[in-house]
Amino acid sequence: MAVVGLYIGRFQPFHLGHLEAVKLILRQADELVIVVGSAQYSHTRKNPFTAGERIMMIRESMKEAEISLERVQITPVPDVNVHGIWVTHVSSYVGKYDLVFSNDPLTSRLFREAGVKVEKIPFFNREVYSATEIRKRVLLNQDWRELVPRSVSRIIDSVEGVDRIRMLFQTDNPTL
Amino acid sequence: MAVVGLYIGRFQPFHLGHLEAVKLILRQADELVIVVGSAQYSHTRKNPFTAGERIMMIRESMKEAEISLERVQITPVPDVNVHGIWVTHVSSYVGKYDLVFSNDPLTSRLFREAGVKVEKIPFFNREVYSATEIRKRVLLNQDWRELVPRSVSRIIDSVEGVDRIRMLFQTDNPTL
Amino acid sequence: MAVVGLYIGRFQPFHLGHLEAVKLILRQADELVIVVGSAQYSHTRKNPFTAGERIMMIRESMKEAEISLERVQITPVPDVNVHGIWVTHVSSYVGKYDLVFSNDPLTSRLFREAGVKVEKIPFFNREVYSATEIRKRVLLNQDWRELVPRSVSRIIDSVEGVDRIRMLFQTDNPTL
Amino acid sequence: MAVVGLYIGRFQPFHLGHLEAVKLILRQADELVIVVGSAQYSHTRKNPFTAGERIMMIRESMKEAEISLERVQITPVPDVNVHGIWVTHVSSYVGKYDLVFSNDPLTSRLFREAGVKVEKIPFFNREVYSATEIRKRVLLNQDWRELVPRSVSRIIDSVEGVDRIRMLFQTDNPTL
Amino acid sequence: MAVVGLYIGRFQPFHLGHLEAVKLILRQADELVIVVGSAQYSHTRKNPFTAGERIMMIRESMKEAEISLERVQITPVPDVNVHGIWVTHVSSYVGKYDLVFSNDPLTSRLFREAGVKVEKIPFFNREVYSATEIRKRVLLNQDWRELVPRSVSRIIDSVEGVDRIRMLFQTDNPTL
Amino acid sequence: MAVVGLYIGRFQPFHLGHLEAVKLILRQADELVIVVGSAQYSHTRKNPFTAGERIMMIRESMKEAEISLERVQITPVPDVNVHGIWVTHVSSYVGKYDLVFSNDPLTSRLFREAGVKVEKIPFFNREVYSATEIRKRVLLNQDWRELVPRSVSRIIDSVEGVDRIRMLFQTDNPTL
Repeated sequence: MAVVGLYIGRFQPFHLGHLEAVKLILRQADELVIVVGSAQYSHTRKNPFTAGERIMMIRESMKEAEISLERVQITPVPDVNVHGIWVTHVSSYVGKYDLVFSNDPLTSRLFREAGVKVEKIPFFNREVYSATEIRKRVLLNQDWRELVPRSVSRIIDSVEGVDRIRMLFQTDNPTL
Repeated sequence: MAVVGLYIGRFQPFHLGHLEAVKLILRQADELVIVVGSAQYSHTRKNPFTAGERIMMIRESMKEAEISLERVQITPVPDVNVHGIWVTHVSSYVGKYDLVFSNDPLTSRLFREAGVKVEKIPFFNREVYSATEIRKRVLLNQDWRELVPRSVSRIIDSVEGVDRIRMLFQTDNPTL
Repeated sequence: MAVVGLYIGRFQPFHLGHLEAVKLILRQADELVIVVGSAQYSHTRKNPFTAGERIMMIRESMKEAEISLERVQITPVPDVNVHGIWVTHVSSYVGKYDLVFSNDPLTSRLFREAGVKVEKIPFFNREVYSATEIRKRVLLNQDWRELVPRSVSRIIDSVEGVDRIRMLFQTDNPTL
Repeated sequence: MAVVGLYIGRFQPFHLGHLEAVKLILRQADELVIVVGSAQYSHTRKNPFTAGERIMMIRESMKEAEISLERVQITPVPDVNVHGIWVTHVSSYVGKYDLVFSNDPLTSRLFREAGVKVEKIPFFNREVYSATEIRKRVLLNQDWRELVPRSVSRIIDSVEGVDRIRMLFQTDNPTL
Repeated sequence: MAVVGLYIGRFQPFHLGHLEAVKLILRQADELVIVVGSAQYSHTRKNPFTAGERIMMIRESMKEAEISLERVQITPVPDVNVHGIWVTHVSSYVGKYDLVFSNDPLTSRLFREAGVKVEKIPFFNREVYSATEIRKRVLLNQDWRELVPRSVSRIIDSVEGVDRIRMLFQTDNPTL
Repeated sequence: MAVVGLYIGRFQPFHLGHLEAVKLILRQADELVIVVGSAQYSHTRKNPFTAGERIMMIRESMKEAEISLERVQITPVPDVNVHGIWVTHVSSYVGKYDLVFSNDPLTSRLFREAGVKVEKIPFFNREVYSATEIRKRVLLNQDWRELVPRSVSRIIDSVEGVDRIRMLFQTDNPTL
């Protein structure tokens, strides 16, 4: 039977480090569910893109990298602010899965406590391939395009994402 | 550029009427986002299956019907109880789309008011191919399998779905 | 010092019975806060109009009846579903007030328990001047305009409210 | 080590059937956590009493029946409306427990699926010793006091509970 | 037809800079809806005053400045934490409006994306006429009264607001 | 009639300072309700333990200190983020009480405004007996056991609490 893996992130935005992780996971799992976390947020400094925009980024990056979407399901999951029920909450959005890929000690522990197998992902160059770094470069007008798949660069342009990120750092809208 | 359509339902469960609709829509649209509504609910009489289970049903039905998942994105969306913001909320989970397929007069009107094009879906035999009918047949121990793709039948069995639906009608757990 | 009264309703829509109540209350109070309850709802069968539309109805009806808005503040208040804190919740949206006008026994009791004075309102012809009756007449294509101020009739037309109410009774959109 | 049991109800109000169940459970378990469900509700027809009032009813009934509170913890738990995470949610309010006492088929199944042992409770005369029956008798001015411990009767009087229940059936406060 | 403008703020508290803005806007618009944002908050360091208190401040300031309340509607709007739907949410509380007055780049962009006209407000001396500055002066026992209309000063006194702000900075109540 | 006191904290974890406070309060009150605030949180840096774990800590500490649970009710209360209704919210979880024990100026003021009597608690050595200090010591591998009752130490071990707190400071799980 097919082995289903789980890979969780916010993907603000999806970058080449994420893409590399997906490729490595697909050597170990037959199918992969990519969970787009914090799905309800957008237009904030840490979450500039909507869930829909992030799903588009990942789908187009899969096509660009010739990874079949027959093997990859992309599922947005809104946060619960009650951490004790987080694993159960994520699971209810995912269906059957066999193992989780994560390097984070807490994520790993929470899934292990719930009886789920957890595997590490061999990331490369984590300091550079980071969404925080990318958002910082956008803000400082430095080269961020070299860190993301070409499809992501195109989608960010199509939603005027650079402008959006800059405005999110200028605003003092009190209710946003 | 690719035309992206939107098709919204709860899919409790996904049945042959839904499958027929997907096929018809894919003649008019290049890509389709299937929105799995009321995503946060499960284990209720009207919403017995989790979002994850419903996504699995749809993915497996696509494969069974040889519809490429390169063209179909399946996206769970939790309800907002504030209807005035429903179209905006759904849109934030979807990204760019060009038209909505719906036979429902209110859904159609709300999307049209928001400036979105709406098309009707030529359903066949709506009385029989209905999720309400299927849940009723499960309860009454009548033949429901003829109304769903074989993959859906298999997934319902694998999660003991018949048993679950029956128990949901027997319970008087006051807090569920 | 000015005596401030409170008058609470959903005003779906604001009608001539409500207007009469406002006039009677303004004989006993110097100023009046009209609380537009269930403010977050719209586009449902019991709550077809948005808070904004209901505020407009009341403002225009005040002007039509030559009641000065210097004496009347219209304040939308979203519901809390936890009834034990309802009086405190409403009060936090209102500021200082001296008495509540209500014919409802529970509303009266809750405010009295919180130490607030409650007065009855002498309504006239409650069976006919009722928002439920008006929504029913709209649906059945009977004369509803005779029951509302002309301004309300005009605003309902300007938002295609008749059409909206009818569609709300036809829809089977599962997630609305 | 001490065996800890779980007993879940809304206790609107706590009655002699509940008390009998507690006694029976304490023959099988060393300690008992009584979960007061739907804790956030009060002042509704199905949930007239606050969590605090219900806790008082249970504590006083324990003392009246000479059941030691060293063995019984009473814990209010607010509802989650997402049933798929209900067992995890309840567990986070309870700490370590060994088995659940329940006659409800769904409750039993959900806990069993989560790996928890479930035992039946031999209730006596379920038609009469029912909170629904008691609320109905209060409304119809019939004898309800014979169905509850004397402490519960006293607490209901002290919060004017009879009056409260009657008013909850008369109100048409639209926002309550 | 009357031109309706929108002016959004938290008004913690309403000050002379806000008043000046209202005057300038009323030269360009026939009517103005003042949206009191973050309406659900109070008793926090950034939001010391309730929505009701802030509405009172604005109403009394209008009267003091001889601005007719026939032209000004004051509407509290609770926050949504999902920014992608913020414009739609605010609009549902407001009804028909023609343009928004704002100096904030993000607010401006979000409304423009939604097809709403946005105008700048010529503020004077923004460093001094700022609610943050006022709350700081209250805390440090410096002259804050010169920055607010006399009515606001009076209302803050009547709710012991100075004392409240100071306590909000002393508390370590863990659950507040 | 019995005098009932209220004592509110988060108890992350319950320590010897809290225990001393309970003892002092029980000299002035016949019964005590210990409110375990922020009950819905766990697995965060400031709230590592679930409500259930915290209740267990307090119950076992009472037994260890030979304080009768006939006199002490331990009640978890989830936060409301709307501070203006906080006193009412807490009260609905507690039932009848006569006075609150608190050293916090804001808590004291809010209860006094609601007409409740407030008493100070003579704490000893507040710098050392602090939950923040304990969590810091756990993180830095310093002696924290001397600051808590032996029962608390044992419960923290049984849930691998030291490990949990350390992981909470290492994680960069974006959705936790």
